[in-house]
Amino acid sequence: MSWFEDSIMARKAVAKGEARAEASLTEAQQGKYHYVYSAAIPPVLRIDPGTVLTCETHDAFEGAITSESDKPTEKLNFPFLNPQNGPVWINGAEKGDTIAVHIDSIVPRGSQPRGTTVIMPEFGGLVPTADTALLTAPLPERVRKLHVTAEEGTVWNDRITLPYEPFIGTIGTAPQIEAISSLVPDYYGGNMDLPDVAPGAVIYLPVQTEGGFLFLGDCHAAQGDGELCGVAIEHPTVTTVRVDLIKGWTIKTPRLENERFYMTIGSSRPMEDAARGAYRELIRWMAADFGFDEIDAYMLLTQCGRIRLGNMVDPKYTVGASVLKSIAGTAR
Amino acid sequence: MSWFEDSIMARKAVAKGEARAEASLTEAQQGKYHYVYSAAIPPVLRIDPGTVLTCETHDAFEGAITSESDKPTEKLNFPFLNPQNGPVWINGAEKGDTIAVHIDSIVPRGSQPRGTTVIMPEFGGLVPTADTALLTAPLPERVRKLHVTAEEGTVWNDRITLPYEPFIGTIGTAPQIEAISSLVPDYYGGNMDLPDVAPGAVIYLPVQTEGGFLFLGDCHAAQGDGELCGVAIEHPTVTTVRVDLIKGWTIKTPRLENERFYMTIGSSRPMEDAARGAYRELIRWMAADFGFDEIDAYMLLTQCGRIRLGNMVDPKYTVGASVLKSIAGTAR
Amino acid sequence: MSWFEDSIMARKAVAKGEARAEASLTEAQQGKYHYVYSAAIPPVLRIDPGTVLTCETHDAFEGAITSESDKPTEKLNFPFLNPQNGPVWINGAEKGDTIAVHIDSIVPRGSQPRGTTVIMPEFGGLVPTADTALLTAPLPERVRKLHVTAEEGTVWNDRITLPYEPFIGTIGTAPQIEAISSLVPDYYGGNMDLPDVAPGAVIYLPVQTEGGFLFLGDCHAAQGDGELCGVAIEHPTVTTVRVDLIKGWTIKTPRLENERFYMTIGSSRPMEDAARGAYRELIRWMAADFGFDEIDAYMLLTQCGRIRLGNMVDPKYTVGASVLKSIAGTAR
Amino acid sequence: MSWFEDSIMARKAVAKGEARAEASLTEAQQGKYHYVYSAAIPPVLRIDPGTVLTCETHDAFEGAITSESDKPTEKLNFPFLNPQNGPVWINGAEKGDTIAVHIDSIVPRGSQPRGTTVIMPEFGGLVPTADTALLTAPLPERVRKLHVTAEEGTVWNDRITLPYEPFIGTIGTAPQIEAISSLVPDYYGGNMDLPDVAPGAVIYLPVQTEGGFLFLGDCHAAQGDGELCGVAIEHPTVTTVRVDLIKGWTIKTPRLENERFYMTIGSSRPMEDAARGAYRELIRWMAADFGFDEIDAYMLLTQCGRIRLGNMVDPKYTVGASVLKSIAGTAR
Repeated sequence: MSWFEDSIMARKAVAKGEARAEASLTEAQQGKYHYVYSAAIPPVLRIDPGTVLTCETHDAFEGAITSESDKPTEKLNFPFLNPQNGPVWINGAEKGDTIAVHIDSIVPRGSQPRGTTVIMPEFGGLVPTADTALLTAPLPERVRKLHVTAEEGTVWNDRITLPYEPFIGTIGTAPQIEAISSLVPDYYGGNMDLPDVAPGAVIYLPVQTEGGFLFLGDCHAAQGDGELCGVAIEHPTVTTVRVDLIKGWTIKTPRLENERFYMTIGSSRPMEDAARGAYRELIRWMAADFGFDEIDAYMLLTQCGRIRLGNMVDPKYTVGASVLKSIAGTAR
Repeated sequence: MSWFEDSIMARKAVAKGEARAEASLTEAQQGKYHYVYSAAIPPVLRIDPGTVLTCETHDAFEGAITSESDKPTEKLNFPFLNPQNGPVWINGAEKGDTIAVHIDSIVPRGSQPRGTTVIMPEFGGLVPTADTALLTAPLPERVRKLHVTAEEGTVWNDRITLPYEPFIGTIGTAPQIEAISSLVPDYYGGNMDLPDVAPGAVIYLPVQTEGGFLFLGDCHAAQGDGELCGVAIEHPTVTTVRVDLIKGWTIKTPRLENERFYMTIGSSRPMEDAARGAYRELIRWMAADFGFDEIDAYMLLTQCGRIRLGNMVDPKYTVGASVLKSIAGTAR
Repeated sequence: MSWFEDSIMARKAVAKGEARAEASLTEAQQGKYHYVYSAAIPPVLRIDPGTVLTCETHDAFEGAITSESDKPTEKLNFPFLNPQNGPVWINGAEKGDTIAVHIDSIVPRGSQPRGTTVIMPEFGGLVPTADTALLTAPLPERVRKLHVTAEEGTVWNDRITLPYEPFIGTIGTAPQIEAISSLVPDYYGGNMDLPDVAPGAVIYLPVQTEGGFLFLGDCHAAQGDGELCGVAIEHPTVTTVRVDLIKGWTIKTPRLENERFYMTIGSSRPMEDAARGAYRELIRWMAADFGFDEIDAYMLLTQCGRIRLGNMVDPKYTVGASVLKSIAGTAR
Repeated sequence: MSWFEDSIMARKAVAKGEARAEASLTEAQQGKYHYVYSAAIPPVLRIDPGTVLTCETHDAFEGAITSESDKPTEKLNFPFLNPQNGPVWINGAEKGDTIAVHIDSIVPRGSQPRGTTVIMPEFGGLVPTADTALLTAPLPERVRKLHVTAEEGTVWNDRITLPYEPFIGTIGTAPQIEAISSLVPDYYGGNMDLPDVAPGAVIYLPVQTEGGFLFLGDCHAAQGDGELCGVAIEHPTVTTVRVDLIKGWTIKTPRLENERFYMTIGSSRPMEDAARGAYRELIRWMAADFGFDEIDAYMLLTQCGRIRLGNMVDPKYTVGASVLKSIAGTAR
């Protein structure tokens, strides 16, 4: 894990990115799951930086969809969707700090078929929605229940099996004074649905209030760019993350680092504004920590920047902008 | 007040739109003002339908900007902006009901110059913002403190005086489980900045949770379409509204009625989605309560619908779509 | 017509806004109508500034829809839609000049029912389109043929008659090197569908190339803001305009002046960009010709600017931003 | 080249994707380069399907920027930008057919430093533009002239060299009746700036009019997703393509095929509409040629679709949506 030794987490965080303690949030320990990102919810757990945290996450429907003959409109109860583990209080975290979360592993759990994707009215990228309200009729509801294993992936049909490429769909800290639905992504993280938030990566989340209040959930077994119909391969998991704290490193929006690249994450509408926000922050980062002149970074990213579309279906769209480590160099 | 007798409020609400009681929220009675729309805040007042409520509202900066030499970035403390009176519990209000608020009057209060508008970084319709993040430098901060009276209006300079055309910039109910910044407009109302929310009009607000939790504030002495630089003529007021309750009339987003027209209000991004949402709901309304076929309403609004742009600067843009009463007829 | 004497047209144009000659483009004189705005088309007419030009315009379908049982998909032949009169060469017009067009009158012509509006697939503001491509099915086609007179207006049904409020839907000059479909609005004018382009107003159009190449057509008997289903009350007319030329007054996008206000017109997507463009140009105009500081104009329009939505259905959306003459003063 | 034998070009095109003839467009043979996509321009060359065509392309500035001290605003003459080779008439091509272009190779030409990128006013993804018109000042102009070779790539500075990853920035057919600036991408191709249009790929272009009128130019030595500042590593090249014709295969917008995936290409604003258009067409394609049910394809792409952002700076944004061949199977 040589790249990790050179990561911002390993070099700047309180526990140096090391695993120094363990904690867990099983279903029983979690108790009630949550549907808002809020610092008004009493923390379910308090941990020190350097804690390895193992969470039993639910799927986005909290298991309510059990059969392909289920009707989402009958089984689901908006806004009680996308249940989150947490909040976890990080000892020492204050506004202006950053929480670093290394994703150690994601393993599917629960009885088969444990994967779920659905079509439901007013949700999705190619249908009328609450935000893009049109006169035309919705698509019929449809449910797929799918066999998912870490070894074989997701069995779509007799011919197609999708590799198991899990990631955390929703992760973030609490806003300072707001309580925002876990269906929304924004500056604090949340429902970004960005496939790069995967095992092996470190995500950096801005602390808005004392303790940080880490939430996570909504793990996907596979997802394409944009999460087109609005529902990836939702599945319950055991997700293990290492949580650390970087004091005094202030970021405006989530950032991510893995073996290959540095990424900034923007969530906004229209989609170009999400892309602008991501690239703008990447330039700010390259100037602050990598020694670039801002305009030089702007011109250089024109030649080598990469865009990853997270979601094009949530209340804000999410876009990651990245630069290869081989180009950017190493953060100071 | 003949049109009012035929209004939905007068015909459908519990108190028939009549003034049957009085209540007030002076600064002292209000105590702490609020910066989120939330049902987690204990109600400051509980009223029956038919109550005339008189509120001492603050300006959007809670009076922090007192001189043209003030720097907004030094005086303001984000996210503690746009202070709201309330929440007011409406006895009998349940999810699925609608609160009707007739705006009786808005009167300026406080010492002169009581009007304020400013330019501040990352906010406004023609500058880079947090949502439309660009590389170019912000405009210099600027503050205008302006003489405002109900009789003469706002004195802009020696040559230009703007008539006093007050309205409530921010009004709404609490979301069911979220606590949303009072800077945001959405399906429950909030920071719509729509000049039609003016004395003489009735605004209808969807109830998301028991008691409704009415908030209001952010009154403007004048505002153009779009609230272009992001800050209208902000001023403290005495605002008097009559609050009533319509049982079992469920609306998805705010609606408005005045002497001349029926209006639906959409808040979204991009702006076309706000317009789509407003027009979609107007068609739904025309079909449900005025006897139109939906497609006929769609074709008719093509010929006579009117669009009012509220804001083009807040986290969501707000658009009102309206149809003349002379065309739509009278709601059943 | 006192306001006109003080208009920019009357004060700056070559012929002082006076009627000094007459010309016409009857159907016979026009011959072939055109579907692109292009300087490659030989002018059908050459006129001096100060010419009163009377045009027999076709409706947007060139009369192809004659019965409510017609199917637009069978009768219409895309891209041969929105036929235009012209091009008219304006003697003396050079790139950087501006053509001023005073709209004298619009009178319906042709046999009844002469008004047409339709629903057709992939076009309209509340349906999936080529630009907002979705999976849901289109609305069924529908045609309305309507009785239209200048005196009574448009008879929608037994109960509803819409007043005759005619305007020119499509008017502009040729781009320098492009030939753009008459379905598109842009910097040179074109299919703006802005109801303020009505009798009594002056529209100013930027000259891109020698002779200017004025086109016009697509007159509407009535239209709501946004032209929601994409097709207003289309009708053939006799449209009379006075055409003049302002040498050396360079504008980037169309502007308009009437008795009450000055307006700039932006066409773009998303809609906020159309609004930004219109307001940005209005500020530029207020600074250049009315003595305002740009930032002061920005703050003032925040309080009194007005937005008119033209179309929300064409390949670019069109928005007019205006300021009252009583506030802006008189152009230098 | 086994994958190619199974390509749509090899299986469906008139010349089976084979090289049966040769032609060239050197600077001398081309003569005047073109700035619009138009069928009104006399073809510079007429070829049969199966012709290998070698073009000397100019850079986007036709070589006008020769030094880092040049000012783009002084050297460039809008709209005479982005010069195109062609138009090439394809014998037998009729409206409703599709032209298949296999990109054989792109080789840099011209004297060093032959690569150019610039910052110019009102153009770029993170600055105010003609479409996103703001009040803030533009960035200062800046020019980079860069050493580019096929072997080493682009030397950005002492530390950073970008690999040579060339592609065709602008390629397409003529619209039926329009003449559109070569700065614009749309349904016929044009200025898509999509890095997948690279050696080894086949791009499919819809024929709008007899002969097709193929244009190409604007080759980039490297480009990041979005072409952020608006100007990639522009450079003159020798570009060799094999051109073939597929009779009776009608596509609405450009498609692409390479060893790994099938891609559809959407150009629109806002960016979500470009993504919608691309995914919508991919679903249509999967249903028509690969045997998928449309809703199944929609749900499957939710799990495995990929988005490539071409440009976020041109008059329309361009997005490619793709599906792996290993998932989609082989086109019928």
